[in-house]
Amino acid sequence: MNIEGRHYRTIWLKETDHRVVQIINQQTLPFTLEILDLHSTEDACRAIKDMYVRGAGLIGATAAFGMYLAALNVAETSFNDDIAAAAVMLKNTRPTASNLAWAADRMVKVLTGHSETQQKLSCLAEKREAAKTEAQAIADEDAEFCRMIGVHGLDIIRKISQKKDRGAVNILTHCNAGWLAFVDYGSALSPVYAAFDNNIPVHVWVDETRPRNQGAGLTAWELGQHGVSHDLICDNAGGHLMQHGLVDMVITGADRVTRQGDAANKIGTYLKALAAKENNVPFYVALPSSTFDFTMIDGLKEIPIEERDPSEVRYVTGRTESGLIDTVRICPEKTTARNWGFDVTPARYITGLITERGVCEASEKGIRGFFPEYDC
Amino acid sequence: MNIEGRHYRTIWLKETDHRVVQIINQQTLPFTLEILDLHSTEDACRAIKDMYVRGAGLIGATAAFGMYLAALNVAETSFNDDIAAAAVMLKNTRPTASNLAWAADRMVKVLTGHSETQQKLSCLAEKREAAKTEAQAIADEDAEFCRMIGVHGLDIIRKISQKKDRGAVNILTHCNAGWLAFVDYGSALSPVYAAFDNNIPVHVWVDETRPRNQGAGLTAWELGQHGVSHDLICDNAGGHLMQHGLVDMVITGADRVTRQGDAANKIGTYLKALAAKENNVPFYVALPSSTFDFTMIDGLKEIPIEERDPSEVRYVTGRTESGLIDTVRICPEKTTARNWGFDVTPARYITGLITERGVCEASEKGIRGFFPEYDC
Repeated sequence: MNIEGRHYRTIWLKETDHRVVQIINQQTLPFTLEILDLHSTEDACRAIKDMYVRGAGLIGATAAFGMYLAALNVAETSFNDDIAAAAVMLKNTRPTASNLAWAADRMVKVLTGHSETQQKLSCLAEKREAAKTEAQAIADEDAEFCRMIGVHGLDIIRKISQKKDRGAVNILTHCNAGWLAFVDYGSALSPVYAAFDNNIPVHVWVDETRPRNQGAGLTAWELGQHGVSHDLICDNAGGHLMQHGLVDMVITGADRVTRQGDAANKIGTYLKALAAKENNVPFYVALPSSTFDFTMIDGLKEIPIEERDPSEVRYVTGRTESGLIDTVRICPEKTTARNWGFDVTPARYITGLITERGVCEASEKGIRGFFPEYDC
Repeated sequence: MNIEGRHYRTIWLKETDHRVVQIINQQTLPFTLEILDLHSTEDACRAIKDMYVRGAGLIGATAAFGMYLAALNVAETSFNDDIAAAAVMLKNTRPTASNLAWAADRMVKVLTGHSETQQKLSCLAEKREAAKTEAQAIADEDAEFCRMIGVHGLDIIRKISQKKDRGAVNILTHCNAGWLAFVDYGSALSPVYAAFDNNIPVHVWVDETRPRNQGAGLTAWELGQHGVSHDLICDNAGGHLMQHGLVDMVITGADRVTRQGDAANKIGTYLKALAAKENNVPFYVALPSSTFDFTMIDGLKEIPIEERDPSEVRYVTGRTESGLIDTVRICPEKTTARNWGFDVTPARYITGLITERGVCEASEKGIRGFFPEYDC
């Protein structure tokens, strides 16, 4: 995707030195575009934990490159143990996103697994090359899967557009599941970009997405860079908009989707799903298959929900009139807060899952039909 | 209610000069306690429009005192016309709160109505005295009605507490419908204070209530001053909490309730009502009868919803680390926003209406049972 007209991904190998991984620092967006260098697995962990990178797909890709950095830095004698330890360290950074464990495990398998591949990876240099290739493949796949989500989601938007008498298709989204949350294209926003690029009039209602305001800071910025019409709204507004026919569809991303189709996503997603159901607004969850967790069935009972620092609720960061980035406290000094990062939307509220293979029903049967290779 | 142990109301006549009305400036809370003087109807209008005062009951009381200030300042020759004009000016400040028009009209009736009272109000001094008495009566009634809401709401909380094995009754509230929103006690928070004062363990989940953060700034402050246990949460969190059994009941206020029981309240209330219904959490709306609008039936179709300045969404105000009050922009410079102030919760999601006369069903029959004098 483009920033000021120049093409970017969210993570890549430094052009002049492939031992360095580069990322866009999403902490300073939308105010400053800052590129950060990652030199070690520790750097990658910090980038995930402190949310320099965030979003299901990008967390996965960062974990993959973090494993590549581990392969570069660990000794040959303790290679397998150190690689396993790096994976554990990465997986411990954040609990909710499915792609994180998926990517780390996939890297471990390539590097230490008892497979034919592993037989061939006899010397350290080869292992490091294999790690680079695999991390790059994970990133490329993420981008390609997101591109395909756009292709399939486009069909849905086109049909809604054809049914409308006039005006743009109004799409509500929560949090940021755009290209900043992946390597490129995004999940929830990929169909929006595809529609825009195909001259279907679209307008996006951007939930600001408290407490970290990824909607206000990232989604609004992304859409602005691409030229897509949008308006920022408070997370509280979606129900009112749906009651008054001002939302034609909802598309959100997901951090983990169970095999029966329950979707963990940014806190507040569930409330929008309830309002969509109640007002007959189609509610789609867009995800690459790496976000599925086939080990889980009941999302409400099984998906671990991260509780984050209460200061995210008590403080808001933004740009002051004088141009500085500053943080303000919005509550009395002694007020305590709680801060759960995600909630689970049960499958029954989800109209369909937009995946790289097509749009499937949010049910075990629906998912199995599109992903038969997984032993559901 | 108490601030630092001293008793306050939110609006009162200045002790040393009854031609001046005093209010607590809610714009500077929770950071600074500032008392403002109102000298004219224009001052009262500004206080309402710019939200130095807010909340259904307090807007009503401010309108009443604004009419009193009109009576002080208009000439005898054009008294009736000027009083009518003052009422129009006050009613035009904000469209959603029912109490505003109710209080202004009640003052007009006393001052200019063709009633027996009016016959007696022959000289200007008498009219002014009558205005003072009536405005004070409206304020006193508001406080007394809110006190009674606490008495009736207390029964509900006590029953829930008795059913619980252990721990506090967890009450979720949205926006500020505490004493700051009224003259004293509050509507939604009056039962909470009553429970606390009766040694029933309660804990309040305080929705921050974007965009103006009345929960974070006012409700958290009020509860803290009274010593009630509470935690600030994002507006997005309530659904998750209800899914996991962490909310025993919801109580919100209302800005206007139709005769069939549809309730307009701060934007986002409807989303909480949906989640409450879905998770079998009782959802109560607390209001003095002045908030009813018996001229309306279908709240979704009939209640006018105020659209406010988009800058409320784009900017957040709070206290910086250095102690200054500052405002930060949370989105890109060019991002546009929309900002509806209220939404309507249809009666079918409301477990009951807690009024000064008791808890009635949110239906025409239920309301008529408690308020037979209104011609429903």
